[in-house]
Amino acid sequence: MPEKEYTAAAVIIGNEVLSGRVTDANVPFLANELKALGIRLREARIIPDIEEEIVEAVNTLRARHDYVFTTGGIGPTHDDITAASIAVAVGRPLIRHPGATRILEEHYGDQLNDARLRMANTPEGSVLLENPISRAPGFQVENIFVLPGVPSILQAIFHGFKHRLAGGKPLKARTITMALAESAISEGFQRIQQLFPDMEMGSYPYIRGGRFGASIVLRSADEAALDAAAAEVMALARALGAEPKVHERESGDISDF
Amino acid sequence: MPEKEYTAAAVIIGNEVLSGRVTDANVPFLANELKALGIRLREARIIPDIEEEIVEAVNTLRARHDYVFTTGGIGPTHDDITAASIAVAVGRPLIRHPGATRILEEHYGDQLNDARLRMANTPEGSVLLENPISRAPGFQVENIFVLPGVPSILQAIFHGFKHRLAGGKPLKARTITMALAESAISEGFQRIQQLFPDMEMGSYPYIRGGRFGASIVLRSADEAALDAAAAEVMALARALGAEPKVHERESGDISDF
Repeated sequence: MPEKEYTAAAVIIGNEVLSGRVTDANVPFLANELKALGIRLREARIIPDIEEEIVEAVNTLRARHDYVFTTGGIGPTHDDITAASIAVAVGRPLIRHPGATRILEEHYGDQLNDARLRMANTPEGSVLLENPISRAPGFQVENIFVLPGVPSILQAIFHGFKHRLAGGKPLKARTITMALAESAISEGFQRIQQLFPDMEMGSYPYIRGGRFGASIVLRSADEAALDAAAAEVMALARALGAEPKVHERESGDISDF
Repeated sequence: MPEKEYTAAAVIIGNEVLSGRVTDANVPFLANELKALGIRLREARIIPDIEEEIVEAVNTLRARHDYVFTTGGIGPTHDDITAASIAVAVGRPLIRHPGATRILEEHYGDQLNDARLRMANTPEGSVLLENPISRAPGFQVENIFVLPGVPSILQAIFHGFKHRLAGGKPLKARTITMALAESAISEGFQRIQQLFPDMEMGSYPYIRGGRFGASIVLRSADEAALDAAAAEVMALARALGAEPKVHERESGDISDF
């Protein structure tokens, strides 16, 4: 029986991303962190701050994947509607969470007001996700993890609970870059795929210094098979007159290469 | 009768984005370009290179929006399945487009091979979108615009056809930044929303130099109303002891501020 593959989806709740005002940094972070935990990010949706769209996205994705991570919309202002929308999605009442209320009372003291107390609202039965930076916690309900949009705060919260996520065997990767147009290598690349039919292989073109290049990415849990396939790709590139480079990781922007 | 609002969705077809290997740059580009054309990017989905997922995303989104833009998966390698998937989505046969074939023949001459010719495959009845950089064209079929994933090429193609897109009156924006925690301004901010109930208002927290701040973004086609609402936000910030800054645009990363 093949090992279970653990999958996740991200729901980026953010008018400010859809307006082009800010560039999302949370999908790359979650993708890389989950990968290290043996969980594959399979889909991400960027949607506006509209209750029915949040409900639809979360309910579609939580049925398909082991985990759903939402980002954004859990602050104290009236446009922060994520907690109330998640309550609708899971069919639970929105309550003022006693533990979150205590955290906010300790943090704000006599500066606590109704707006700040909104950050203690969660669907009934939620588990808090500790926020070491700005204190107002995220929360988990069912398989949904509700996180803020500010990357540094999201990251701090994520590192606090990630040990609780179950994952599989992490896929390993080899990336081979070469100063060749994709169309020059495509026939040989398809032949290599046929030699390793179960291996996940992708080819990604790039332009650097006005020249075309291609990154071939191989993914598998089997390191020996990866090395053998990488050797085939290297031989293909050399046969076409290029000097390929192999990288034993796939993280990071290709501009690192 | 209110003016029609033109909307669009983006489908980012990219295992490499979901794996965290590269950070998507096409959503911010499309968001800002479409905004200038009076078209609002309402949703973006990042999905893997899997036919059924491409078909589902494109068919859901093309029914909801005036335009759908796909990025990625139109190269010459066997993992490039976007054109075939779009043909399935729109229920048209995948053909070798005569015009695209001519472009590739002229570009590659006797270096043209079967793999390169795959880049001439489109759903029947597609209109080509000229590619001034690497020649292999994108295409439009129904309200779907199929573009490559490499940002510089996508951008060059987009600028070649954007004059054909119909849009509405562009929304204007004012962004007011202030070194105040969101929770300090939330009650006053809600009162300002009540003064301008139809105006779109968002509050986005940030951290800079270890201090919390908030960006208030106001959007409307009515410049006079924007100026009046911005004045209220400025007065709120000053009443709370901050020196706010107003920006007459919303594009660009908040780190510019």
